[in-house]
Amino acid sequence: MTVTDRERDAMRRALSLARRGPRGLNPQVGAVLLSPTGDIVAEGWHRGAGTAHAEVAALAQLAPGEAAGTTAVVTLEPCNHTGRTGPCAEALIAAGVTRVVYAVDDPGERSSGGAERLRAAGVDVASGVLADEGRALLDSWLTVQRLGRPHVTVKWAQSLDGRAAAADGTSQWITGPAAREDVHRRRAEADAIVVGTGTLLADDPALTARRPDGTLYPHQPMPVVLGARRVPDDAAVRRHPLPLLHRDGENLAGESPNEPSLMAQLRDAGVHRVFVEGGPTIASAFLRAGIVDEILTYLAPTLLGSGAAGGDHPALRTLGVETISDQLRLDVASIERLGDDLLIVAAPRPARDASQEGTR
Amino acid sequence: MTVTDRERDAMRRALSLARRGPRGLNPQVGAVLLSPTGDIVAEGWHRGAGTAHAEVAALAQLAPGEAAGTTAVVTLEPCNHTGRTGPCAEALIAAGVTRVVYAVDDPGERSSGGAERLRAAGVDVASGVLADEGRALLDSWLTVQRLGRPHVTVKWAQSLDGRAAAADGTSQWITGPAAREDVHRRRAEADAIVVGTGTLLADDPALTARRPDGTLYPHQPMPVVLGARRVPDDAAVRRHPLPLLHRDGENLAGESPNEPSLMAQLRDAGVHRVFVEGGPTIASAFLRAGIVDEILTYLAPTLLGSGAAGGDHPALRTLGVETISDQLRLDVASIERLGDDLLIVAAPRPARDASQEGTR
Ligand SMILES: NC(=O)c1ccc[n+]([C@@H]2O[C@H](COP(=O)([O-])OP(=O)(O)OC[C@H]3O[C@@H](n4cnc5c(N)ncnc54)[C@H](OP(=O)(O)O)[C@@H]3O)[C@@H](O)[C@H]2O)c1
Ligand SMILES: NC(=O)c1ccc[n+]([C@@H]2O[C@H](COP(=O)([O-])OP(=O)(O)OC[C@H]3O[C@@H](n4cnc5c(N)ncnc54)[C@H](OP(=O)(O)O)[C@@H]3O)[C@@H](O)[C@H]2O)c1
Repeated sequence: MTVTDRERDAMRRALSLARRGPRGLNPQVGAVLLSPTGDIVAEGWHRGAGTAHAEVAALAQLAPGEAAGTTAVVTLEPCNHTGRTGPCAEALIAAGVTRVVYAVDDPGERSSGGAERLRAAGVDVASGVLADEGRALLDSWLTVQRLGRPHVTVKWAQSLDGRAAAADGTSQWITGPAAREDVHRRRAEADAIVVGTGTLLADDPALTARRPDGTLYPHQPMPVVLGARRVPDDAAVRRHPLPLLHRDGENLAGESPNEPSLMAQLRDAGVHRVFVEGGPTIASAFLRAGIVDEILTYLAPTLLGSGAAGGDHPALRTLGVETISDQLRLDVASIERLGDDLLIVAAPRPARDASQEGTR
Repeated sequence: MTVTDRERDAMRRALSLARRGPRGLNPQVGAVLLSPTGDIVAEGWHRGAGTAHAEVAALAQLAPGEAAGTTAVVTLEPCNHTGRTGPCAEALIAAGVTRVVYAVDDPGERSSGGAERLRAAGVDVASGVLADEGRALLDSWLTVQRLGRPHVTVKWAQSLDGRAAAADGTSQWITGPAAREDVHRRRAEADAIVVGTGTLLADDPALTARRPDGTLYPHQPMPVVLGARRVPDDAAVRRHPLPLLHRDGENLAGESPNEPSLMAQLRDAGVHRVFVEGGPTIASAFLRAGIVDEILTYLAPTLLGSGAAGGDHPALRTLGVETISDQLRLDVASIERLGDDLLIVAAPRPARDASQEGTR
């Protein structure tokens, strides 16, 4: 059976219902139940981890038996595993739903297989309906599923010759207002913002995402400070609208039986996108760990060099590159002028992940 | 009297005659003598320092008295000073030339005033004819007159994070073939190419301008090596088609009663354009001396960082910037993709020359 226009309309509705749910550990999912004549008889969406899945929320709108013969239109393939809620595939079968239309395949190892289960029970299944819109909605969540950790952006500002500060450590301001505005806009798209104790103690950053007029963007990244040193009681970050996560940064992404890695902790807190703001030691540690997906270099048209007495503040430190064949090659995605500055957006070449990561 | 079409045609001819002369200490100048009916009766061009100026070379084509009543069409204002040849203004007056048409004013302090001298003697003078073409022809010579020294381009290749080499000093190749091709094309536009003894001994560069197939461009820059250390007898630079200038680099541009600065020596050798290829120590010395007009940064999309044991090879070293307010701000002229690499063309902001140079 081909997909009808009414089913496509219902999918659009399901996508907009999905957006009502929070971005977090679980995917945002919406569901609509259609009567055999194509009328919407129930709606549901997922309200976050621990609450009913979208299909189940929709079924719950109806009296027992009422769902028999309906078509379920869902933005994500109904799950097939028993988590905090039962498998949605079973719930749909049990309710007598006779057809399921969905947008995006479930990428989860444990949760996928819902379509197969439905078909095995004689339910008619159509997949990939408005799949592009569905994937766009779930973009950052799907990335977390693929990577097994949040997406990581590392940002730094530097002079053309790769310095983050002059010989005496002064750096305000290397880059101009357009670059700073761009940084804040990108902070507002992240779920967590990371700095080291070095930057915290040197700059006392607020770690909020602010508009040029100083007001806060509606979505704020959770502030994360890495390092053993104390965060002062009067640190600006303590006035952040979200609570501070302060932990060591020794285990960024590795496996450890004792305590979860930073990446695991952030993933399990529902963080999809991490924005690493430095400083040089922390940025280098993330690059060394091979967990950087995106690099933002704000390049100021200026030269700083090193000091006559040897003071030198490179924007990056030790990356684990000892000889030229170990270099960390990048793919440049874009180059943009921001006022006087340049923004170079790049990503480490995947080849390294595959061939070199394991051997070093 | 307005400028006629035949005079303009004669100027075009004079410009093409000028190009036959060599680029060097003296300007390339061409001259044409027109009869009262507008026919070309003589032509001349300047063949280089110590030979006749273009007007005098044209007059020499004619028998005594034959130039009376002619119009001289010259690409540069006739000179007014007695150098190795007498002032051209006087020669034109003495020959009975009644009208002079020229393209570009003589910028020389001692040589200018020719037009005034001619007018005072009753000669009709028209200036600025095809002035743009005239200035284009003399571009690099006029720059030398304005700066009092050759135009200086400093070029370096670096990783995005400002390193010229990996921790162990290896660097071949950071940039790709398109960037190297661009460097050679630009070498072929320079009259001198400068490296320090560090680079000479490390890389044994040929310092020739070569096409991708290895053949030499017709115009080769004169090779210059700066530093006290010996240039080995079997150094590749000794096989350069032009003789090597090897001298110390202590006095790049200053005044010294004992020996001329590098800039004075190169200027007096007729060098218009200097291409400084490094290494980092030499590039930094030129920047510190405030004599850099153009910066070419070939930026490879790669990260190198420093070594675990501390090895670090920044593309620039000490620039005399100790604190952020001393930073050497640049104006970016262009950004170009060359294969995988970026070429950033920039120039130090003039403000620094004016307000800061003198006080440091
Ligand atoms: N140009 C830019 O874009 C930019 C951005 C941010 C900051 N900055 C500047 O950078 C300077 C601070 O940078 P920084 O490099 O000194 O400090 P940093 O990178 O902010 O913090 C370094 C500290 O983080 C802790 N840490 C946690 N996990 C770590 C790990 N895996 N590896 C290494 N260290 C880890 C350590 O502190 P503990 O000893 O406490 O454990 C370490 O000393 C400031 O001057 C700031 O203004 C520049
Ligand atoms: N990335 C690039 O674009 C690029 C370009 C060129 C070279 N390189 C690399 O750079 C390395 C060499 O660079 P380097 O910095 O060591 O050497 P360098 O800049 O080539 O030469 C430095 C030497 O020049 C002499 N010198 C002359 N005038 C000077 C002055 N005013 N100030 C200071 N020194 C002066 C000194 O030698 P004396 O002791 O002999 O007087 C000094 O040791 C090589 O590994 C080469 O491969 C990279």
